[in-house]
Amino acid sequence: MKKVDHIGIAVRNLEQVLPYYTDVLGCPLLKIEEVESQKVRVAFIDAGNIKLELLEPMDDTSPIFKFMEKRGEGIHHIAFGVENIEQRMEELRADGVQLLSESPKPGAGGALVAFLHPKSSNGVLYELCEKQ
Amino acid sequence: MKKVDHIGIAVRNLEQVLPYYTDVLGCPLLKIEEVESQKVRVAFIDAGNIKLELLEPMDDTSPIFKFMEKRGEGIHHIAFGVENIEQRMEELRADGVQLLSESPKPGAGGALVAFLHPKSSNGVLYELCEKQ
Repeated sequence: MKKVDHIGIAVRNLEQVLPYYTDVLGCPLLKIEEVESQKVRVAFIDAGNIKLELLEPMDDTSPIFKFMEKRGEGIHHIAFGVENIEQRMEELRADGVQLLSESPKPGAGGALVAFLHPKSSNGVLYELCEKQ
Repeated sequence: MKKVDHIGIAVRNLEQVLPYYTDVLGCPLLKIEEVESQKVRVAFIDAGNIKLELLEPMDDTSPIFKFMEKRGEGIHHIAFGVENIEQRMEELRADGVQLLSESPKPGAGGALVAFLHPKSSNGVLYELCEKQ
């Protein structure tokens, strides 16, 4: 992996948390969008060399809602930017890494994404993220 | 904040985890060092635009040992690179942010570091990190 694209952070309420990032930490808000497939509202925060993605669940079926029920708000995943996600998934599978989906899914920012099982990564949820 | 310097990741055993990062994810190991003040052995991993810091507790007094007792292995903190850490700490205090220390402490890689209380950051442990 040659680049971290973003860090995903689970929050209960985007509007409550945003002023901390923009005014206190001084990181600009890039945009807010909804990702229907993950049932999240996402705020993209510019942290200079990478982005922070604040993830608010849209309802209690969202994986982010379930994450917060267990662990509370906090860091959810680290996303590597990749160029050919299908090939990367194949290589990882060949190395014995367990993936959370068979094929890439539509993610935030129009990207294709796939997650590595945290059991393969010593408790870290890694994402592969290919920008279209 | 204009730059993420690294992401800290708690692991039980560096040597067990390293091949996953170097051989499977393909991220080079930069160096390993001990940070006495935090009672951790740290492996610096090159993820391209940022570093991953794998943190192994040296004994059960390490904050990383205590973190893993509660939450297991996984992502521990996000570190922002800053230029004048004392000034940044003062500005954050003025904005009502709670810090975990009065003054900066020696961290990995010869840096000066200070942590923001996760209560101030909606569950995320942020570090300020000034390279010497």
